[in-house]
Amino acid sequence: MYIEKIHGPQDVKRLTVGEMETLAAEIRKALLEKLSAHGGHIGPNLGMVEATVALHYVFDSPHDRIVFDVSHQSYAHKMLTGRAEAFLDPARYDEVSGYTNPAESEHDCFTIGHTSTSVSLACGLAKARDLRGGHENVIAVIGDGSLSGGEAFEGLSNAGEMGTNLIVVVNDNEMSIAENHGGLYGNLRRLRESGGRDACNYFRALGLDYLYVGQGNDLEALIAAFRQVKDTPRPTVVHIHTQKGKGYVPAERDRERFHWGMPFNLATGEPKVAPQGEDYSELTGRFLLDAMRHDPRLVAITSGTPAVMGFSPERRREAGARFVDVGIAEEHAVALSSGIAAGGGRPVWGVYSSFIQRTYDQLSQDLCINNNPAVIAVFAGGVLGMNDETHLGFFDIPLLANIPNLVYLAPTCREEYFAMLGWAIRQTDHPVAVRVPDGGVVTSGATFETEYGALNRYLVTQRGSRVAILGLGNFYGLGEAAARRIEAATGIRPTLVNPRYITGVDEALLEPLRTDHEVVVTLEDGVLDGGFGEKIARWYGPTSMRVVCRGVRKEFADRYDARELLRANRLTEEQIAEDVMALLR
Amino acid sequence: MYIEKIHGPQDVKRLTVGEMETLAAEIRKALLEKLSAHGGHIGPNLGMVEATVALHYVFDSPHDRIVFDVSHQSYAHKMLTGRAEAFLDPARYDEVSGYTNPAESEHDCFTIGHTSTSVSLACGLAKARDLRGGHENVIAVIGDGSLSGGEAFEGLSNAGEMGTNLIVVVNDNEMSIAENHGGLYGNLRRLRESGGRDACNYFRALGLDYLYVGQGNDLEALIAAFRQVKDTPRPTVVHIHTQKGKGYVPAERDRERFHWGMPFNLATGEPKVAPQGEDYSELTGRFLLDAMRHDPRLVAITSGTPAVMGFSPERRREAGARFVDVGIAEEHAVALSSGIAAGGGRPVWGVYSSFIQRTYDQLSQDLCINNNPAVIAVFAGGVLGMNDETHLGFFDIPLLANIPNLVYLAPTCREEYFAMLGWAIRQTDHPVAVRVPDGGVVTSGATFETEYGALNRYLVTQRGSRVAILGLGNFYGLGEAAARRIEAATGIRPTLVNPRYITGVDEALLEPLRTDHEVVVTLEDGVLDGGFGEKIARWYGPTSMRVVCRGVRKEFADRYDARELLRANRLTEEQIAEDVMALLR
Repeated sequence: MYIEKIHGPQDVKRLTVGEMETLAAEIRKALLEKLSAHGGHIGPNLGMVEATVALHYVFDSPHDRIVFDVSHQSYAHKMLTGRAEAFLDPARYDEVSGYTNPAESEHDCFTIGHTSTSVSLACGLAKARDLRGGHENVIAVIGDGSLSGGEAFEGLSNAGEMGTNLIVVVNDNEMSIAENHGGLYGNLRRLRESGGRDACNYFRALGLDYLYVGQGNDLEALIAAFRQVKDTPRPTVVHIHTQKGKGYVPAERDRERFHWGMPFNLATGEPKVAPQGEDYSELTGRFLLDAMRHDPRLVAITSGTPAVMGFSPERRREAGARFVDVGIAEEHAVALSSGIAAGGGRPVWGVYSSFIQRTYDQLSQDLCINNNPAVIAVFAGGVLGMNDETHLGFFDIPLLANIPNLVYLAPTCREEYFAMLGWAIRQTDHPVAVRVPDGGVVTSGATFETEYGALNRYLVTQRGSRVAILGLGNFYGLGEAAARRIEAATGIRPTLVNPRYITGVDEALLEPLRTDHEVVVTLEDGVLDGGFGEKIARWYGPTSMRVVCRGVRKEFADRYDARELLRANRLTEEQIAEDVMALLR
Repeated sequence: MYIEKIHGPQDVKRLTVGEMETLAAEIRKALLEKLSAHGGHIGPNLGMVEATVALHYVFDSPHDRIVFDVSHQSYAHKMLTGRAEAFLDPARYDEVSGYTNPAESEHDCFTIGHTSTSVSLACGLAKARDLRGGHENVIAVIGDGSLSGGEAFEGLSNAGEMGTNLIVVVNDNEMSIAENHGGLYGNLRRLRESGGRDACNYFRALGLDYLYVGQGNDLEALIAAFRQVKDTPRPTVVHIHTQKGKGYVPAERDRERFHWGMPFNLATGEPKVAPQGEDYSELTGRFLLDAMRHDPRLVAITSGTPAVMGFSPERRREAGARFVDVGIAEEHAVALSSGIAAGGGRPVWGVYSSFIQRTYDQLSQDLCINNNPAVIAVFAGGVLGMNDETHLGFFDIPLLANIPNLVYLAPTCREEYFAMLGWAIRQTDHPVAVRVPDGGVVTSGATFETEYGALNRYLVTQRGSRVAILGLGNFYGLGEAAARRIEAATGIRPTLVNPRYITGVDEALLEPLRTDHEVVVTLEDGVLDGGFGEKIARWYGPTSMRVVCRGVRKEFADRYDARELLRANRLTEEQIAEDVMALLR
């Protein structure tokens, strides 16, 4: 095998084109074996194998700098830069992250996980080079799906003005995670169809030179193109047309499902572990589609991740114009939602906690100043969501909860979630976000209020004394368990509260607790800094109440084990009970 | 005068073109009289008079919906929609805000103040219309300067895909606040030079139809163009070439200075009140330009607002390639800074507190996960900055202070500011933001440390007992004053602390205060929710310490009087002293 002899790009440069073709086949085979056993990004990596080999053949990393957008397509790059064993040896599969990572290799320029950032980051490297008088090439590798994000446009337009060496490889596989959305993609199509010759050219309009490679999985064509642009003094786009999922029939056929996946059967492409019954994505899609049948004003919106809100291709077809995928363009999704609400529609945007980070100003300016009644369903908020440092789901509370006018709700179970979501859609007084429960569907069987318009009224679910536990959303159950432990150990029956509202303090509930409670505990599935608990701590600050806030430390935890993270933050039921009891005297 | 007889758009429709030309002259005269006496956005409004008259002549607001981007160019629109008296009668000048405002008129669709949002908001109105089966025109009016923001691109690309009536009027006056930046502007120039005929067309590349009007201050040409696109079933750009500052020679000549201004002498264009000596913008520009002479790696970056960091046209020329204006593209500015820092340069991005809101995800992902040592100078943070609800400067602490790895510093005076900024530029361990003091230059004459690398160490400036006051940044002086009052009234000499670090808690300082202090007060020039004080309240939560947090309520305060806002939040020195003394027993 060639791949075993590749210890760095210098070893690629010694190969013939025929040998590189064999190398590409070996890489593809290793990728499929690892990904089918381990899970990961499948389609994006399979399509980029030849381009990655060609990049390392033509350019001289790490002297030349290659910045991968999103960087979930960097697996072949990792294999060619000294990390092949992490793909070949099952015992070492976990040695590398799923994204570029400067801590792993000098060939990785940045830790990157969100889309649309590579061109701007590369502009920075180019600017630093020019100040220094350097001559290396700076290369950004960006997928077509990432071009829809505003940051990518800002980067391209500024690259166009810089007038210096900066090579943008646009990997056009005609797909985002799902199909692409946005008028830009019509231009990419016309460019593909005209072999790059269409005079109306998005990249040229922004001031970049442009080169088209129709055979983006052909090594010779790629090598020729990269050689042509190497050392160019101009910002230049190399638009390569590749095939997502290339070389694996199931992934070529179902490109959306094979964008990212859990372990699968290599022979059939079927998941090894069947989906475990219902999840909140599936339930949400069903709920919204059903609600659409009764409410002609309802519109479901996604920004490139339809599956998280349960909109499979079938549901998308059924919803028709009532389902809008804006592509990876979260800022637009918020402003669009505000506009639809202002026009009398009922928009529901479903988004991952990690990606709502891209919209603070739109939430504040476009939505909340205008107080339009758009609805946001925030998925995978908390420590049980994605656990890569680039995709953490536990920063949404500080982001959202400190914006005026927004109502952010934290349901504790399935029934409460849909009660809150239903109210959010019906009401017309506030922008409302709902933090979709995470960590498995909890069916409490309980009945919940259907009206939440009297804001910031917490719910006492158990009336006790001395200790009150405010268990927010996902951590309500943890609060229940801690309360049981405290009662079993001390005979003290804590008061248990479901706060429901993340964005406000229920003063009428907190004040009387002062008469017969000494300790208030807040539990939140999120970072402590700027979060819910601190609002409670501030409110009780001038009083004699002892307040214990539990959540996670402010840090970019990476590939953590959720149980360990919780334990390290004293968030097990035993630890909470222990800490509370230590305060009782 | 015609203007006095215009009570709404229906009165415009009755005029002849000749009468509308007279009307336009009257509007321009009224604008100049009001703005020279009152201050406001000058150039943008003077250039848009004819286009606004033509829009109301051709379209039928409020049935047709007109969305103004930034909306600081909506003054003529206000005059034509029942609000002329607020421009004609000096006694009524303050009756209207400087931006569109649905509370003022049904002709205003949204409260808007940040750029690049109009197309996305208009897409929402168009989507709601289509769901409803309506037929009104939806029009977004966007300046060329706003096109550089990523949200505008996301909106245009999605408009291009919608394939429905949505008219985007691009007001091209060849200027942002300062000159335009970005490769896109090359395309706009080629479109102007070719009379709109260049085949490479940014708007067509995104899927929109396109019409060019070279004489954007000519009523007949504008009316003809708007009539041509009215009721179009397609997303359509009308690119009009106007003159910023049109009709007022000083504003035509110095378009940057006359973008926005304080009251000025109408005959000469000179400001009525000369700048009062030094300000932090001026001092910062001088400091950075001087630092550039000693450090070849230093780069100053602005996102379309060079003046706030003291980079006048003269300083920009002197700095040459060491000063980068990325245009209104804050996201790019952050990623560019991270890239420059990664490449060994020393970037300093200067930005308004209100506009740093546009970059949460870039701060977190592009900058802080990578822990690159870029420097950010945050201007006009606090309640003394801009006081329009769309430009509030008091939300930056919750935004920045809860992101891991970032060091956010709060200097209390001029000397400390430059000590901190100097350190931030020299060090290579952290991304560092400095909250530039606001509210007049405070020269303390004191000497400050030049090293801040031992993080989160607060400075005790007066050692007392029973009460400790943590006066953050701008409010350190307020803390001093309150301490004097408490001492004068009670004989108790409070401990006074300059926390310096917004992003962390000095546990080693807080812990021993528990032995001889009962009350800790935090003072911050920002919103309380998610802010600095809450971190202190949480830290002391499990203890017997009484903590009083003072800052401003979470709300979109609009055109407020800062002294009244402070009083309403119990932030005068008298109120603070009173509240503290009430807690002492």
